[in-house]
Amino acid sequence: MPEAVSPTVPLPQNPVDDAAIDADRLAESLAVLDALVDECRLELAVEGLRVRAVDPANVAAVSIDLPADAFERYEANGETVGVDVARLAEVVGLADSGDSVRLVLDAERRRLHVLVGELAYTLGLIDPEAIREPLDPAEMEYDCPAELALDGRGISRVVDAADMVSTHLTLGVDPEAGAFYAEAAGDTDDVALSFPREELAALSPADAESLFSLDYLREMARPIPADSEVTVELGSEQPVTLAFAVADGAGAATFLLSPRRSVA
Amino acid sequence: MPEAVSPTVPLPQNPVDDAAIDADRLAESLAVLDALVDECRLELAVEGLRVRAVDPANVAAVSIDLPADAFERYEANGETVGVDVARLAEVVGLADSGDSVRLVLDAERRRLHVLVGELAYTLGLIDPEAIREPLDPAEMEYDCPAELALDGRGISRVVDAADMVSTHLTLGVDPEAGAFYAEAAGDTDDVALSFPREELAALSPADAESLFSLDYLREMARPIPADSEVTVELGSEQPVTLAFAVADGAGAATFLLSPRRSVA
Amino acid sequence: MPEAVSPTVPLPQNPVDDAAIDADRLAESLAVLDALVDECRLELAVEGLRVRAVDPANVAAVSIDLPADAFERYEANGETVGVDVARLAEVVGLADSGDSVRLVLDAERRRLHVLVGELAYTLGLIDPEAIREPLDPAEMEYDCPAELALDGRGISRVVDAADMVSTHLTLGVDPEAGAFYAEAAGDTDDVALSFPREELAALSPADAESLFSLDYLREMARPIPADSEVTVELGSEQPVTLAFAVADGAGAATFLLSPRRSVA
Repeated sequence: MPEAVSPTVPLPQNPVDDAAIDADRLAESLAVLDALVDECRLELAVEGLRVRAVDPANVAAVSIDLPADAFERYEANGETVGVDVARLAEVVGLADSGDSVRLVLDAERRRLHVLVGELAYTLGLIDPEAIREPLDPAEMEYDCPAELALDGRGISRVVDAADMVSTHLTLGVDPEAGAFYAEAAGDTDDVALSFPREELAALSPADAESLFSLDYLREMARPIPADSEVTVELGSEQPVTLAFAVADGAGAATFLLSPRRSVA
Repeated sequence: MPEAVSPTVPLPQNPVDDAAIDADRLAESLAVLDALVDECRLELAVEGLRVRAVDPANVAAVSIDLPADAFERYEANGETVGVDVARLAEVVGLADSGDSVRLVLDAERRRLHVLVGELAYTLGLIDPEAIREPLDPAEMEYDCPAELALDGRGISRVVDAADMVSTHLTLGVDPEAGAFYAEAAGDTDDVALSFPREELAALSPADAESLFSLDYLREMARPIPADSEVTVELGSEQPVTLAFAVADGAGAATFLLSPRRSVA
Repeated sequence: MPEAVSPTVPLPQNPVDDAAIDADRLAESLAVLDALVDECRLELAVEGLRVRAVDPANVAAVSIDLPADAFERYEANGETVGVDVARLAEVVGLADSGDSVRLVLDAERRRLHVLVGELAYTLGLIDPEAIREPLDPAEMEYDCPAELALDGRGISRVVDAADMVSTHLTLGVDPEAGAFYAEAAGDTDDVALSFPREELAALSPADAESLFSLDYLREMARPIPADSEVTVELGSEQPVTLAFAVADGAGAATFLLSPRRSVA
């Protein structure tokens, strides 16, 4: 399919930020961001696309790294732009599976051109200074000694089951039993899930137990594909991190969720 | 898959009521109950699970019989427990198709443990004395001389068509024409369905015609699989019964709906 | 399957208007009408079914022509009847794919009998004099020198993309570039689609550009199958027409939409 050029909004001459990526890869990464934030900063680093964002209540954070080789073509110069995540996801959603999405930055006019087949969408950008700069979860230090891995289906089952009885749940590791567990208690009913070592893709056991909000975990579980392997790091009254691959393994995503102190 | 044990809510020691059943079979039976009632009594009889329930307005009744051989394992001692049907259905809905659901009664603590794979759900039970004991539709005597059989698809078509013009419909058998019929009349439109003997799986004709509420019939039609054979018994101003197999033929379900006297 | 006869509403004796048609063909044609009107006149002409209708605001028009050979059987005498389009579509929707729908007019009692398998639906007709007679779009003269053809998928993509930024869009042909284009401008974002000649099934280029309401175009795009070829005629500040085949090519449908003068 020839690349389209909008008859009304011309592309910048010799753009320095010009990339093309498989529509499904981009859609998947945007869905991860969309789970927590409305707007975010995209850092168009020389070595790839890098996003760090926190939710408005400062309870959860998300990071996406799409290195240059996750793209079909990638040229960038280190610019940082602010975008409306849901809007960009909606434009990419107009692509058919297998389509290529071309992204061209017009830094001067503060526009991102999104080109898919015969479609040329011109996205107005947001001043990145107006978007709070988050802490980088990769650089934060937590004491999360327990690490384990299970598939996205397991994460969804934990959320769906806990959701039936409560608004929050406990995640923990029992080193003696060698199991990852989740528990939630309601007024009349309780629910517990226990994943023994042999049902997990990995387990580095250590004492760990923290309480989390289900509202956040539900949003975070939604964009994780059912058969993706998710690496979970847990501590005692520490944040939980969920790390998984995006873009067919070429990119990486991480969610971080702060613990709740106690149940009101 | 190993059977999970909740780390927080221990199973009773040496439970006397302990059964395991295919998740789809249990889900199907609960959907039948859920069509009419919010809460019901489960009788954990020695020979199998037995449920009799009436809707709150006392207009319709439902029965389910799942004999021991509909289960993968069945041990029971005649207890009767009260459950929230929709809640139990929701828990069973977390199972994947083909999963086995284990049910363990803790009579002392009034809890039903529902175990599916790594999930241990503890369902608080309802005092069965607080749930009205229904008449047993199997023991009620009605004068319903006409009997016929058609598939669930036919029942749904009757309901969908009548629903377009009215809130109630007439079901009857015309012995001369040798046909089962349904009719509904609206302000501007009328609808009639006629199933001649050759389109029915069975027909024992006799004069029969009664008027029914569509609200109930719609709920009753919903859980009946499209290709299940439904045996219908009809009389003149008598209840209608819809009987069909559940649990791959190992169990039996019956709906009973009282007639309306006249149309306001 | 034997043709059913309602036990309560007898068919007219020796009906002069009596036709049978594949349910999918009829459903598809009714969906086209339903996009713009609630009620319309059906002209049961000797040579086939003919419908002309305008939307209540007089902004858009629709025509359907189903010649006699689009039917399995067709006998008609030139009657014109008024019908509730959505209601008739709902009745036809009760048919299974592949079913035949028989339509029998009872002109005297102002009823249309709709017979599908065991179902006999009696539709009360509307006085055709109470439905405004539209101009015939086929007879209206416009100056639309540009003509092109693309598939229904292309029409939907134009609508979906424009919908993201505005309530109206410009459709035009650029004779120099040899392309059909669509453009919409929003507060922060713009969208443009350009279909070069090689992506179109046909193109007779000429200067043409007009502005249209998306509310109407969205409704018109909905019933057009994704792989149907749509012939588009455009002028400068002239209506657009979308013409496509229905009933597996045996019938014809046309939408006409008036241009908007300017953007408020």
